[in-house]
Amino acid sequence: MNRKIRYGMIGGGRGAFIGGVHRIAASIDQQIELVCGAFSSDPQRSKDSGADFFLPPERCYGNFEEMIRTESALPADKRMDFVSIVTPNHLHFPAAKAALEAGFHVLSDKPATFNLAQAKELAQIVKATGKLYGVTYNYTGYPLMRQARQMIEEGKLGEIRKVVVEYPQGWLATMLENTGQKQAAWRVDPAICGAAGCMGDIGTHAINLAEYVTGLHIKELAADLTIFLAKEGRRLEDDGNVLLRFTNGAKGVLHSSQISIGCENNLSLRVYGSLGGIEWSQLDPNTMIVTSLDKPKQIYRTGLGYLGSAAGAATRTPSGHPEGYLEGFANIYRNFANHVRAVINGTQPNPLDMDYPTIEEGVAGMAFIEAVVASSAANAAWTPLDYTPTPRAKYGDASLNSDRGGLS
Amino acid sequence: MNRKIRYGMIGGGRGAFIGGVHRIAASIDQQIELVCGAFSSDPQRSKDSGADFFLPPERCYGNFEEMIRTESALPADKRMDFVSIVTPNHLHFPAAKAALEAGFHVLSDKPATFNLAQAKELAQIVKATGKLYGVTYNYTGYPLMRQARQMIEEGKLGEIRKVVVEYPQGWLATMLENTGQKQAAWRVDPAICGAAGCMGDIGTHAINLAEYVTGLHIKELAADLTIFLAKEGRRLEDDGNVLLRFTNGAKGVLHSSQISIGCENNLSLRVYGSLGGIEWSQLDPNTMIVTSLDKPKQIYRTGLGYLGSAAGAATRTPSGHPEGYLEGFANIYRNFANHVRAVINGTQPNPLDMDYPTIEEGVAGMAFIEAVVASSAANAAWTPLDYTPTPRAKYGDASLNSDRGGLS
Amino acid sequence: MNRKIRYGMIGGGRGAFIGGVHRIAASIDQQIELVCGAFSSDPQRSKDSGADFFLPPERCYGNFEEMIRTESALPADKRMDFVSIVTPNHLHFPAAKAALEAGFHVLSDKPATFNLAQAKELAQIVKATGKLYGVTYNYTGYPLMRQARQMIEEGKLGEIRKVVVEYPQGWLATMLENTGQKQAAWRVDPAICGAAGCMGDIGTHAINLAEYVTGLHIKELAADLTIFLAKEGRRLEDDGNVLLRFTNGAKGVLHSSQISIGCENNLSLRVYGSLGGIEWSQLDPNTMIVTSLDKPKQIYRTGLGYLGSAAGAATRTPSGHPEGYLEGFANIYRNFANHVRAVINGTQPNPLDMDYPTIEEGVAGMAFIEAVVASSAANAAWTPLDYTPTPRAKYGDASLNSDRGGLS
Amino acid sequence: MNRKIRYGMIGGGRGAFIGGVHRIAASIDQQIELVCGAFSSDPQRSKDSGADFFLPPERCYGNFEEMIRTESALPADKRMDFVSIVTPNHLHFPAAKAALEAGFHVLSDKPATFNLAQAKELAQIVKATGKLYGVTYNYTGYPLMRQARQMIEEGKLGEIRKVVVEYPQGWLATMLENTGQKQAAWRVDPAICGAAGCMGDIGTHAINLAEYVTGLHIKELAADLTIFLAKEGRRLEDDGNVLLRFTNGAKGVLHSSQISIGCENNLSLRVYGSLGGIEWSQLDPNTMIVTSLDKPKQIYRTGLGYLGSAAGAATRTPSGHPEGYLEGFANIYRNFANHVRAVINGTQPNPLDMDYPTIEEGVAGMAFIEAVVASSAANAAWTPLDYTPTPRAKYGDASLNSDRGGLS
Repeated sequence: MNRKIRYGMIGGGRGAFIGGVHRIAASIDQQIELVCGAFSSDPQRSKDSGADFFLPPERCYGNFEEMIRTESALPADKRMDFVSIVTPNHLHFPAAKAALEAGFHVLSDKPATFNLAQAKELAQIVKATGKLYGVTYNYTGYPLMRQARQMIEEGKLGEIRKVVVEYPQGWLATMLENTGQKQAAWRVDPAICGAAGCMGDIGTHAINLAEYVTGLHIKELAADLTIFLAKEGRRLEDDGNVLLRFTNGAKGVLHSSQISIGCENNLSLRVYGSLGGIEWSQLDPNTMIVTSLDKPKQIYRTGLGYLGSAAGAATRTPSGHPEGYLEGFANIYRNFANHVRAVINGTQPNPLDMDYPTIEEGVAGMAFIEAVVASSAANAAWTPLDYTPTPRAKYGDASLNSDRGGLS
Repeated sequence: MNRKIRYGMIGGGRGAFIGGVHRIAASIDQQIELVCGAFSSDPQRSKDSGADFFLPPERCYGNFEEMIRTESALPADKRMDFVSIVTPNHLHFPAAKAALEAGFHVLSDKPATFNLAQAKELAQIVKATGKLYGVTYNYTGYPLMRQARQMIEEGKLGEIRKVVVEYPQGWLATMLENTGQKQAAWRVDPAICGAAGCMGDIGTHAINLAEYVTGLHIKELAADLTIFLAKEGRRLEDDGNVLLRFTNGAKGVLHSSQISIGCENNLSLRVYGSLGGIEWSQLDPNTMIVTSLDKPKQIYRTGLGYLGSAAGAATRTPSGHPEGYLEGFANIYRNFANHVRAVINGTQPNPLDMDYPTIEEGVAGMAFIEAVVASSAANAAWTPLDYTPTPRAKYGDASLNSDRGGLS
Repeated sequence: MNRKIRYGMIGGGRGAFIGGVHRIAASIDQQIELVCGAFSSDPQRSKDSGADFFLPPERCYGNFEEMIRTESALPADKRMDFVSIVTPNHLHFPAAKAALEAGFHVLSDKPATFNLAQAKELAQIVKATGKLYGVTYNYTGYPLMRQARQMIEEGKLGEIRKVVVEYPQGWLATMLENTGQKQAAWRVDPAICGAAGCMGDIGTHAINLAEYVTGLHIKELAADLTIFLAKEGRRLEDDGNVLLRFTNGAKGVLHSSQISIGCENNLSLRVYGSLGGIEWSQLDPNTMIVTSLDKPKQIYRTGLGYLGSAAGAATRTPSGHPEGYLEGFANIYRNFANHVRAVINGTQPNPLDMDYPTIEEGVAGMAFIEAVVASSAANAAWTPLDYTPTPRAKYGDASLNSDRGGLS
Repeated sequence: MNRKIRYGMIGGGRGAFIGGVHRIAASIDQQIELVCGAFSSDPQRSKDSGADFFLPPERCYGNFEEMIRTESALPADKRMDFVSIVTPNHLHFPAAKAALEAGFHVLSDKPATFNLAQAKELAQIVKATGKLYGVTYNYTGYPLMRQARQMIEEGKLGEIRKVVVEYPQGWLATMLENTGQKQAAWRVDPAICGAAGCMGDIGTHAINLAEYVTGLHIKELAADLTIFLAKEGRRLEDDGNVLLRFTNGAKGVLHSSQISIGCENNLSLRVYGSLGGIEWSQLDPNTMIVTSLDKPKQIYRTGLGYLGSAAGAATRTPSGHPEGYLEGFANIYRNFANHVRAVINGTQPNPLDMDYPTIEEGVAGMAFIEAVVASSAANAAWTPLDYTPTPRAKYGDASLNSDRGGLS
C-alpha cells in the first residue's frame, strides 16, 4: 500500500483545543491524512471547520453517526481508515462503539469513556470487532519516557520501591468556568466530563505514565480530593492527594491540582528502585536524570546515541533540537497509524510501533478515576482498582504481544 | 555586657556529624564561645575532642551531669550561659531537663525528646524554670523561608490551600548501618532514635518548615510508612507518604524517604494560596519562585533589596554570594544567643531575634512523629495531632510574644 | 483561494537531516503541501525519496533545473507555488536564482549563498523578479525571541548595552567527518560549505538572532578562529571567539564551537540594556528570564497571556505544553506561506506574517561570515561588515514594510 | 603548639563588606583567632569596630604601622601570627610590605597590589623575608573547583582546548557611586582601586579561577573595555570582553560586566578538552557538570564519595547541605592557617593545605589587569602578560612545592 493512512475526526471544530493538537500530531510525519470529520454538532460549523483544512463540504458531517454511515458506503480507496475522537468525555464511548462496529479503527482522546462500565463494555467491543483501538495518553510518547520504561524493563533500576508522580496546574484557581472559557466550562461539568474533575482530566495521565514507565499496576489507593472553589459553585474536585500501593509492594504518592497558581502543566515522574532512579519533568521533556548507587547522577538527553531503541524510534531531531509536546503526541499517532498500515497490508507490525496505549490502558484509566472518587468519598479509605490487568509484553519480547494487541 | 555568649556542648565528640555543624553555626558570627563540653561518655575521648578546639582538659567532662554540676559551681564570669545538646535522640530530654533545672538555657538538636510525653514534660520544665529553650529546626533559618513566612503573614498569597513538602534522601538505600557507619547505625535503632526512622530524622523537619512558613497547623494526617529493607533487618521505616489536612482547611502531602537513590537532602516546599504561591528547594536555598495570578513568575533571591526585614536580618553576604546550610543553621544560633544576651542584660530582645523554634515546636514535632507512626500502624487512618498549638506572634506584632517566648 | 500552498523541494533526499526538518515544519499547520522535488542528483534516489511522501514518480526530478522547467509548464492549479532549498550551501544560489527567475517564490536554508558576492547578486534578483524570498534562520521563530524583539522595540530594556551570544556544540570534537557521517563530511569541506566552518554553520545563526532581537547591526568585529583538529586534517575552523561592536555603541561577544564536548546545540542569547535584560537558551526555549532594575527577575513562559502579539501569533499550545525546535521552524514556514498566499490572493498580508528572514538577513549573514574569516586571518583585526543594512519595520509600524518586503 | 592561630586585621571596620567576610572565613573552623586590628584610620572607629568582636581597646590600632610595631613588641605567646589585609586596593602593598618585613605572615585581599610593579616588588619581599603570603582569590576554595583542577591535572579532560569564563554583575548599571554607597564609591575611583574597574574587581577573579583549574597561563589577550556610564562621569570600565590565548594553544573568552542588570555575582567557568569538559557556576557552587565523549553528562556534587582528595579536604558537610561562598572563602583561610601552623611547628605541611593562592597568583593577577587595560587602550591589540609563571606542583607531586611555597 503506497498511500497515506486516512482518518476522520469526531469533534475538534473551531474553538476546541485538543482537536488541533490531534491534527498536528497526525500531520507531522506526513503519513496520515485527514479526509473527513464530524467536527461539530452544528452542520454548518462542521463544514466551516473542515474548510480550514481544505476538506470538501460533503465530507464534513453534522454528527458522527452520519459520518460513519456515509464513509462506510464509500469505496475502499476513498474511505477513511480510522476515526480520531476528540469530543468531550461523554461522547467518547458512543463514538468509539459506533466506529468500531462499523469496521473502523479508533484512536480516542482520554479518558476512554465516561465511566468504568462503559470502558469494560468497550473492551469487549474491541475484542469482538478485532479492530485497533488506541487512547491518547500522549505523555507516554516522549522519547525519554520510553527510555525509562526500557531501562526499568531491563532491570537497570532494580526492584521498584518508590514512585512520586505529580500533575499540578493552576489555571482553575479562580472560577474561570464562569467567564465563557470553553475549555474550563466542560471540564468542570460532571454531566460532560464524568465523576472526577482534576483527576479525570490530568490525574489519570499521571497514573498512566507511572504505570507505563514502571510496568507496575496500582493495587489500592487512598485519595483525599478537594473542591477548593466549592463555595463559588464548583462541583468537581480541583485538587487531590493520593497514596498509592503498587502490586509489587512499591509505594507511591500522586498529587494533582488545578488551583496551584503558577503551575502550568507540571507533570513530573520520579521512580526509585533498589539500584537507581529516574527523575523527569514534562516541562523539560528532553532531560532525564538517572541515579545510581555511589555514582554521579547522569543526564540523559533526547537524541543521543547512548539511548535505547525505544527512545531512538521516537525521536525526529538530533540532540539539542528540543522536541516537545506535539512531537510526543505525534509518536502515538505514528505508532497507531503504522499498526493500522500493517493490518491493512497484512504484515507483521514493528514491535516498537505497538507501543501505544490501548483499551487496556483505557480501562485502567477509568478504574483509577472511579477508585479515586470512591476512596475520597469514604474519607480516603484504601480502595482497590476494579479491573484485572493483562500482562504486557516487554520491548524485547514481541511474542507476548498477541494477547493484548501490542506492547502498550 | 561586653563579652561573647558562652556555651557548653553535650555530645558531638570526634566522629559525630551534627556536633560539628553546631560548633560552626555558633562560631560564624563570632558572638558565641565554646567553653566546655561533655563530648563523649568516654572521658578521655571527651578530652581529646575538646582539645581539637583548644579547650582545657578540666572543662571537658565525661558526662553531662558532671558538666552541669561543675559549671554551676564556677563563678558567673566563667560559667557557661547555655548548653547545646547534640547527642542522639534518647539523651535530649534528660540533658535538657538537667540543664534547665540547673539554671542554664538550652539549645537542643531536634527532635526535642524521645517521645511526646517527654516533650510535654519538658514544656512544663521550660515554663517552670523560665529559662530559654530552642530546638534546631534549622531549615527555618534560611533567609527565603523567613521571607516566605513574612509574605504569607502579610496575606500576599491569600488563603493557603495547598502544601507540598518533600524530604527525600537516598543514603539508606542499602544496609549502610551494617557497615560501621556511625550516623546510620543510631538513626535506625529504635532504642536510640525513637518510634520513627525517616519521619523522626527528616520528616519532622519538613513538617516543621511547612508549619513555620504557613503559620498553619496540621489537624490530622494519614500516613503510609514502609520499611523497604525490612527483610534485611531494618526495624524502622525508611520511607513514608502522608496526606495532610491543616487547621484552616488547606490540604497537603508530605513524602520523605531514605531509599530514593540519588536524592541527597532534597527538602523542598511548595505552598499555594488563593492569590499566589511560593516554591523553594533547600538544594538551591537562595532562590524562591513566587507565583501570582496572571503574572510572570518571579525569582526571589537572597540578599536583594526587595526582600523584607526578616530575610534581611538573616543574611550575611550580598546577593550572588551563596549562603548555605551552615549560615541558615547559624541564624538559629544567632537568634538564640541574642535572646540569651538580652535576658542576661535585662533588655528587650529584638523581635526578629525571637524567630527561632522553641519548645512549642519541640512538642509539635513529637506530636507529629507519634501521629504518623500511629496512623501508619492503623493502615493510614486519619489521626489528629495530640497537642494544642499556642497562637504565635506575627513578625509585625511583638506584643503577642510574651506567651510563647518569641516569634517562633 | 481555498487550497494548500504547494511547494517543491530541492535536496533533502534520504539520509539528509535538514530536509526532513523542513518537511515537518511545512506540514505542522496543514496549510502547505509538498507536491514535487529534486531530492537528489541521482534520479532514482530522488524518486525513492519522493515515494516516502507518496509523491508520484513524474514529479520527482533528478535536478532542480528539470524540476523548475517542468513545473513551470504545469497548469496553474497544479504547479508548485514556491521552492524550498535544502541542499548543501554551494547549491543555494544557483537553485534560488533559477527558481526566482522562473517565477517561483523561494524559501532557502541558510546561509543564503556560498559567498557574499552571490548574496548581493541574489538580492538584486529578488528585487528584479519581485518574488518572495525567505531564508530559514529558524531560531527567530521561537515565540520568546519574538517577545524579546517586541519588548526591545517598545523600549522595555532601554538603550541596549551588552550582548552575549553563544552557540557551542561538541559533535566535531573528533574527526567525525572521517567516519562516513554525511552531515559532518560536507560541513567541513570548503568547496561545499564555503569559507567558514563553525561560523558558517552555526555562528551565523547566533549573530542573526542577536540582530533580530536587538534590532541592532554589527558595525565591526574581531575574530579569533581556530581549527583544533588541524593536525588531523580538518581545513575549516571548529571554534571561534568574536568581539562585537554594534552600531549604537553596544558591545558584545560571540563564541561558537563544534569541539566543546557535551554541548549539543546550545544557542543562547543574553541582552542587557539600561533598564533591564533578557536571558534565553534554545535548550529550554519556552523560558525567558527578564531582568529589571531593583526588582525580582521574572520568568516569561511561552503560551501565557501576558506575552505580546508577536509571541502569541507564534504559539500553538497552552503554556506548559512545550513547543520545540520544529514548531519554531514551522513558524518561519507559516509566515512565509501566509505571505505567499496573500500575494496569490492579492491581499494585504498580516504584518505579523511578514516576520521571517528575507534576503536582507541573507546578505547580512554572508557579510558576517566573510568578515569573521577576514578578521581572523588578520589576527583578529577589527573588520567592518561589508553591506548596508536597510532599516526594518517595527511590529507596530506596518507602513515601513514596503521597502523590505516585511518586518524581518 | 596547641592553640589557635592568631591574626590581626588591617581594614574592615564598620561599614566595610569584605572585612566581615574575612572574619567569618577565619572563624568557621575555630582554628584562628582575631586578636587585634587596625580597622580604620580613625582610631576611635577602629576601637569601636574591635569592640564588636570583643577585642580590648589597646589592641585596636589607628593605623597598620602602629599595629605592626606594637604587636612586634608583644611576647611571642600573645603576638599575632599573621595579618589579614582587607583595605581598598591602594593600601595592599604598603601594608603587606610592612607586615612581611616585620616578620608577620600575610593574607591579603585581592588584587595583591595597586599595580604590577608593586606586585613584582612584593614578590621579592616575600622571597627575601621567607614569610608566607596568600591572596584571597577565594573562588578557588570551592570544593568543585579543586575537583576540576585535580581532574584536569590527572588528564581526565585530555588536552585543554577551550575556556569560557564569565563574571557579569549588574549593580553598577546606574551611578550607584553617587548615592553614598561606600562599596561602589571606591571601586570606581582610579586613585584607590587602580587602573581597572570591572576587570580589577572581578575580571581578575575569573582569570585566576580559569588558570587555577586548567593549570594553564594566558599567553596573550585582546580586550575591549567600555565605560557605559562615561557620560554620567564614571572613569573606569564597567564592562569588558576579552579574547584569550593560552600557553598550550587553548583559546578562550572572558566577559565581565557591572552593568548587566539582573546579574548578581555570576562567575562561571567552562573548560573543554579533547576528552571532555566541565561546567560550573558560582551561583550553584555545589554542582559541576562533567562531560565526556559519547556518554551522558554527569552531575558532580559537593560532598559525595566519588570526588577526589582535594574536594574532599575542602568540604565540611555531607552532600545536599549546601556549602556556600563563606565556606569556600574559609578554605583559603584554613589552608593558609594550617601552613602557618606547620611553619610555627617546624613540621611538613599537608600538601593539600598548600592549595591557596600565593604571590605567584598575586603577580599574575596584576599582570592580567595591566595587560587588559593596555590592550583595550590599543583598540584590542594582542597583548602578552608581563610576567613569567613558575611551574606549579600537582596535587600528587609534593616535591615540586619547595620553589613556590605551595601547590597554588
